[in-house]
Amino acid sequence: MQVALVMGSISDWPQVKTTADLLSELHISFDSHVISAHRMPRELQHFGETAKDEHYQVIIAAAGGAAHLPGMLAANTTLPVIGIPIQSKALNGMDSLLSIVQMPSGVPVATVAIGSAGAKNAALLAAEIIALQDSDVEAQLQAFRTRQTKEATESNDQLQ
Amino acid sequence: MQVALVMGSISDWPQVKTTADLLSELHISFDSHVISAHRMPRELQHFGETAKDEHYQVIIAAAGGAAHLPGMLAANTTLPVIGIPIQSKALNGMDSLLSIVQMPSGVPVATVAIGSAGAKNAALLAAEIIALQDSDVEAQLQAFRTRQTKEATESNDQLQ
Amino acid sequence: MQVALVMGSISDWPQVKTTADLLSELHISFDSHVISAHRMPRELQHFGETAKDEHYQVIIAAAGGAAHLPGMLAANTTLPVIGIPIQSKALNGMDSLLSIVQMPSGVPVATVAIGSAGAKNAALLAAEIIALQDSDVEAQLQAFRTRQTKEATESNDQLQ
Amino acid sequence: MQVALVMGSISDWPQVKTTADLLSELHISFDSHVISAHRMPRELQHFGETAKDEHYQVIIAAAGGAAHLPGMLAANTTLPVIGIPIQSKALNGMDSLLSIVQMPSGVPVATVAIGSAGAKNAALLAAEIIALQDSDVEAQLQAFRTRQTKEATESNDQLQ
Amino acid sequence: MQVALVMGSISDWPQVKTTADLLSELHISFDSHVISAHRMPRELQHFGETAKDEHYQVIIAAAGGAAHLPGMLAANTTLPVIGIPIQSKALNGMDSLLSIVQMPSGVPVATVAIGSAGAKNAALLAAEIIALQDSDVEAQLQAFRTRQTKEATESNDQLQ
Amino acid sequence: MQVALVMGSISDWPQVKTTADLLSELHISFDSHVISAHRMPRELQHFGETAKDEHYQVIIAAAGGAAHLPGMLAANTTLPVIGIPIQSKALNGMDSLLSIVQMPSGVPVATVAIGSAGAKNAALLAAEIIALQDSDVEAQLQAFRTRQTKEATESNDQLQ
Amino acid sequence: MQVALVMGSISDWPQVKTTADLLSELHISFDSHVISAHRMPRELQHFGETAKDEHYQVIIAAAGGAAHLPGMLAANTTLPVIGIPIQSKALNGMDSLLSIVQMPSGVPVATVAIGSAGAKNAALLAAEIIALQDSDVEAQLQAFRTRQTKEATESNDQLQ
Amino acid sequence: MQVALVMGSISDWPQVKTTADLLSELHISFDSHVISAHRMPRELQHFGETAKDEHYQVIIAAAGGAAHLPGMLAANTTLPVIGIPIQSKALNGMDSLLSIVQMPSGVPVATVAIGSAGAKNAALLAAEIIALQDSDVEAQLQAFRTRQTKEATESNDQLQ
Repeated sequence: MQVALVMGSISDWPQVKTTADLLSELHISFDSHVISAHRMPRELQHFGETAKDEHYQVIIAAAGGAAHLPGMLAANTTLPVIGIPIQSKALNGMDSLLSIVQMPSGVPVATVAIGSAGAKNAALLAAEIIALQDSDVEAQLQAFRTRQTKEATESNDQLQ
Repeated sequence: MQVALVMGSISDWPQVKTTADLLSELHISFDSHVISAHRMPRELQHFGETAKDEHYQVIIAAAGGAAHLPGMLAANTTLPVIGIPIQSKALNGMDSLLSIVQMPSGVPVATVAIGSAGAKNAALLAAEIIALQDSDVEAQLQAFRTRQTKEATESNDQLQ
Repeated sequence: MQVALVMGSISDWPQVKTTADLLSELHISFDSHVISAHRMPRELQHFGETAKDEHYQVIIAAAGGAAHLPGMLAANTTLPVIGIPIQSKALNGMDSLLSIVQMPSGVPVATVAIGSAGAKNAALLAAEIIALQDSDVEAQLQAFRTRQTKEATESNDQLQ
Repeated sequence: MQVALVMGSISDWPQVKTTADLLSELHISFDSHVISAHRMPRELQHFGETAKDEHYQVIIAAAGGAAHLPGMLAANTTLPVIGIPIQSKALNGMDSLLSIVQMPSGVPVATVAIGSAGAKNAALLAAEIIALQDSDVEAQLQAFRTRQTKEATESNDQLQ
Repeated sequence: MQVALVMGSISDWPQVKTTADLLSELHISFDSHVISAHRMPRELQHFGETAKDEHYQVIIAAAGGAAHLPGMLAANTTLPVIGIPIQSKALNGMDSLLSIVQMPSGVPVATVAIGSAGAKNAALLAAEIIALQDSDVEAQLQAFRTRQTKEATESNDQLQ
Repeated sequence: MQVALVMGSISDWPQVKTTADLLSELHISFDSHVISAHRMPRELQHFGETAKDEHYQVIIAAAGGAAHLPGMLAANTTLPVIGIPIQSKALNGMDSLLSIVQMPSGVPVATVAIGSAGAKNAALLAAEIIALQDSDVEAQLQAFRTRQTKEATESNDQLQ
Repeated sequence: MQVALVMGSISDWPQVKTTADLLSELHISFDSHVISAHRMPRELQHFGETAKDEHYQVIIAAAGGAAHLPGMLAANTTLPVIGIPIQSKALNGMDSLLSIVQMPSGVPVATVAIGSAGAKNAALLAAEIIALQDSDVEAQLQAFRTRQTKEATESNDQLQ
Repeated sequence: MQVALVMGSISDWPQVKTTADLLSELHISFDSHVISAHRMPRELQHFGETAKDEHYQVIIAAAGGAAHLPGMLAANTTLPVIGIPIQSKALNGMDSLLSIVQMPSGVPVATVAIGSAGAKNAALLAAEIIALQDSDVEAQLQAFRTRQTKEATESNDQLQ
């Protein structure tokens, strides 16, 4: 698998499914996991430490509130980790965003937007990284970008 | 030792020293540790898992920015964990606060105020917990509270 | 009773009931109270001052907006006080959170997350404190934690 | 005395002195008190309950962080209470402001701006209330307002 | 009339009606006005300048967004002005609150909470000011406070 | 004069001087005024009402905190009003920004950035408006933009 | 055409339609465009560079989230650009507002309020600019302002 | 060159130099550029469009305030773009962060922390991406991580 798609809770799946669908569309192989940083810390530790041996190239991790999953995975691997801040109930994902993006120096997390825009962009960012050495994914990515430019252009045409 | 006093970086020591000094003043035994959640994840995991066997009664953990230390220690133990949000440079500790207090349901962190007020209150909160079964600490705590009430009252007298 | 569960208004009960249910599940004895800091200040004062004589070990206090209940109870007792910031209407509980967690040095409140996650975690934090000297509660707490890890693990299995 | 000027800590005095000086300038009689809501809760309770018998007409209360002093005084009296949010260290007084202004329905606090502008305006607001039945204070207030309009107008003249 | 109740737009009436109802309940005479600071600036100016001659004792002004009504009324009178921050659509009233409470030194606005709690408290704050010289309003205010304490106490009794 | 440059207080001059200097550089005629919305409300009203007769084309208004000057000028004229949010002490200009930009529908203020960047951009925005019918200003503006592009390009050359 | 009305996505049209309707009401000629800054960057560049040759006098640009459309159009033209921050899903438009208003010095964007109030005010601000040299638009604008003052006044009459 | 290091202004260089130094330490080839999104939009467009032909593998872009540089580069390339939010003067980088991270779906920017922690982590994130196909960089990265863990561990030893 090229990508490990990890979420902190099965309740995040409706948002993360957007990521999964786009990974498929871009011909990227992946598998999905629920690993709660706080309820399954050992599995988190193990998953991070062995991710490279599993030949993943990118980890995508989605979590909300005091979101520790992306940062703790990043602490246990040198693979690039992409963090999706889930839109939380009380604070609308501002807590998720700051918990993921404000990593202290030494261990980065590549953070994308809160919620569904971020869920989609996480797949595209993974594709950009993988495309550096996978020409099929690069072609899919270029096609996707061309397609979305075309759709935006067409909506402009229709408006007029 | 009754309390484990843990900080995410040696650079947090100036703020955490306030906690240490007050623990001493309250006759609470403790030892101090630097455990970076992101640079020393294995030690973090191990520390949390063995904290009960080490006969600690309370863990105090201080961290800043995307602060994962208190929550990840709490994920690995059922001892009460008190979190001190260190005042961060850009966002003044609002990132630290939300990363510590907004824990998802299932694993609590007892969060105190950002910065030096929190550093002091962490020691007092630990004392309140330990005092439930340690009459010496209870006496010290009562004396501390009486003293600070007296000082506040005296400052009122002097004002007039 | 081991725990006093106090709320600022009967309208907080739907959120606080989560705390009550989990306390029961963890075999912790408790009673529930409505004490409005602003409408019943004398009762607040009296409740705080006599809480120790009533043999409570922990006070859990939930309040919203300019939430003064947890801090004022803490000012009148040396028992550990856990504060739950109720999700408020206009500011989503950010006012409740800051009014509870930003206590000046000298009187701590152990603050948990805004809203329902915090309501559940308040019960677990109380259990962690009581478990230090109550082996039945400790066993219940361990069982709870094992159970929730198992549920998270199973949701991972089902996803795959 | 017409006004009771209360602060949560003697360390608030440098900011509160602005209020005191302006009260004097406006011919309003007042006395000053340090009453820490958290360190002197009994005195707070007593002060609120007896404020009317002491013939105060207005209470001005300044506090910072999780600022409970103005709201708890208001809970114990039906005199108008003016709250000054002290500029706090980490959060610049946003915590003080929300802890004072977001009072739940039933007990109001008349809140002014954070820091020194608020400290001055608290005195002016007290003057506006007292002026309703004290013609000397009304004259002083009118003179003050005329003077500050004149100064602003003169600064405009000098600019040109 | 003792109180002028002013709102920036007729669309604020549903929130301001709470204030009106409570003023009636407290035996305070008042009349209601729509004066848009931005659409009716001349009327605003005139209303402020003549408010004292109309024998109002207190002005209550409600406005939302970049809320200039309370501050501009206060600029044109030395009567006490109470500001109610209307809960706005995008920013939930944080813009209304800061536009009202952060008045520069020289002209105060007595600010209450955002939305319906503030609407109710504005009436109570007006009552507290008027009660200083109107014994009927004072009696009504005391009765109101006693009633609400009784209701809170009864809700506590029912809980148990 | 083409532009009226208005500030709420002479203390804003150090920031507003940047605007004045750039207006001069762009060959735009202007005069400067101190008009405090809260201390000189009559002058504010008069200034807005007569601005068109004075043949101004644009008004630039700078104010801080609960900043009412730009919006109230806009309420009294149909000339374009540009608002500069002054960086305030406690809240760093967030209060100034929201008080200026969040104008309710019906009366717009063209808002620029907080502080010195906004002070400069206010002059440029005025120039863009005036350039629509003043070819000298248009030439100056084009030259300014060319110059700043050249400077940025040169700093790139030097870096390499 | 006097105004180019540009939006970042066709999904912004429901909010931007308010702008279009008001432009029509004010007798301002305009055409509408979808130009996604991120999906159609070449069109954005081209549109900005040629806007002056197309004889537009004002550009109105609406965008949400990390909103780059208004600022990048402004970077490519010296026409005045008015930015409307679209109310975003997670952060309610605070991200849109800061992405548009906080332009660094050198290239201004005339920013209006978040959401529907801003959408309406963008049209009025454009009218104010165009009215400087178009007496028909000036007459329409005056009539609009008179009308809305009359409506506000009438709502006051009805309230009484 | 493997990495293009781009900043919006030469004044960002002191912060961005941290990134440059760490890239060198990790044996990653790079060159540095000043490209102001708003002052050099054509160069920005050209740089993005040709970045792939220049054989860059990663672009790192630092910008502050309404930071459009990272997002607009990402709009013009399918290379991964890492965004560093520069700590801004008034809003401490919250504006920079939201302008970079909140990208709408379709074009991602891999965002790191505000200021110096982010500047360092941008280099590490670039290294993680390049290490997927460059074993020397991978070795350097592993060595760096080992070194920083060792330093953290030693600071713990010294504390004890």
